[in-house]
Amino acid sequence: MPQTPHIEQHFTGSELIRDIVIGMADGLTVPFALAAGLSGIVNSTSIVITGGLAEIAAGSIAMGLGGYLAARSDAEHYANERETEQREVDMIPEVEVEEVEQVFLAYGLEKDESALVANALRQRPQAWIDFMMRFELGLEEPDPKRAPRSALTIGLSYIAGGLVPLAPYMLIPTAETALLFSVGFTLVALFIFGYVKGRFTGNRPFRSAVQTTLIGGLAAAVAFGLAKVISR
Amino acid sequence: MPQTPHIEQHFTGSELIRDIVIGMADGLTVPFALAAGLSGIVNSTSIVITGGLAEIAAGSIAMGLGGYLAARSDAEHYANERETEQREVDMIPEVEVEEVEQVFLAYGLEKDESALVANALRQRPQAWIDFMMRFELGLEEPDPKRAPRSALTIGLSYIAGGLVPLAPYMLIPTAETALLFSVGFTLVALFIFGYVKGRFTGNRPFRSAVQTTLIGGLAAAVAFGLAKVISR
Repeated sequence: MPQTPHIEQHFTGSELIRDIVIGMADGLTVPFALAAGLSGIVNSTSIVITGGLAEIAAGSIAMGLGGYLAARSDAEHYANERETEQREVDMIPEVEVEEVEQVFLAYGLEKDESALVANALRQRPQAWIDFMMRFELGLEEPDPKRAPRSALTIGLSYIAGGLVPLAPYMLIPTAETALLFSVGFTLVALFIFGYVKGRFTGNRPFRSAVQTTLIGGLAAAVAFGLAKVISR
Repeated sequence: MPQTPHIEQHFTGSELIRDIVIGMADGLTVPFALAAGLSGIVNSTSIVITGGLAEIAAGSIAMGLGGYLAARSDAEHYANERETEQREVDMIPEVEVEEVEQVFLAYGLEKDESALVANALRQRPQAWIDFMMRFELGLEEPDPKRAPRSALTIGLSYIAGGLVPLAPYMLIPTAETALLFSVGFTLVALFIFGYVKGRFTGNRPFRSAVQTTLIGGLAAAVAFGLAKVISR
């Protein structure tokens, strides 16, 4: 596939960061809320720790394998579509030429200008298929090494994120005190994480920090409140 | 933005389905694994139910709001990039014409053919910007109504998915027996969900069903095993 030359690709090389963000966002939020919820039911740090670790294990496997399959199915989808385009270019080239012309007509080119581009592409079948993949279908060729790397990155980030809210329960013997430290630590971690995430994703960092902290805090508060109400 | 005319858009109209799949995949998996994990520690259905509901509340809030913010930040990213393109087209049109030519040169068109297309686009600034957005940056204009709808769909799908593994604990008084039914029910639900997901996402349904069931089962087994080992 020809490399489209740009100065302006914003997401290049940030798949790793995206995977870390995906894993850590959930890892910081869900185990945090669960630990808060469990603290609302039982006054035993060991149940909170065990439940929390079980959740971290489950969540990191589910998210990691989910990421693996998503990346794999992207790659398969791309290959299937490419085969279809290849077949269409071979079998019904007139229809495909017509489709290219339609694309350019839609962008306001004249009939003869569109025909010229379509014909020029027709002379170069591979470039033509690349063009259809990117332009007509909006698909980019996925990196084949992406799937396992993505799985590992998401899974490990989930574990790293999830250990933050659990650490206080491992260090402090009283569940109530541990909860306070867990809330404090995790809200700070969420704020820093949201700030960094904002910088990497092109959002305003401070706003991203506030939003991330609010979501995590809200989820934990609801989980804690719900657990208290139900277990009463 | 001009509608690119295609026969072959595969993802059109499936944002709703994608959101349901996102929410339900995690909703079926994580609360399932957590319930299994909690069953490995305590022999009390009420703790499993309360912990499970707390997790469902936390997870649906975290995922729903996460989906909301993701959709919002997509929209903002698009608007920012569009503004940048607009400014560049106004300020340094020669550079932008050059960029369009580069795109077509990369697809194997001749210099004069590329220049013709670039010039034709130059006559129509709005279409030109649309072209750059889609082709150079690979960005589609997001639907502004997407964010709240996405949040609600993901959150509700998470809740619906999460109630499947918890239901047996609500109906059966013994945690051990409830666990067996929870595992049975949820594996069947994961299989059906995976099959349907495969049909909607263009993967082989049966393989998708097997994969989804394996991931969910593995996550639950690890959570259960880890909880048993730690709480011993």
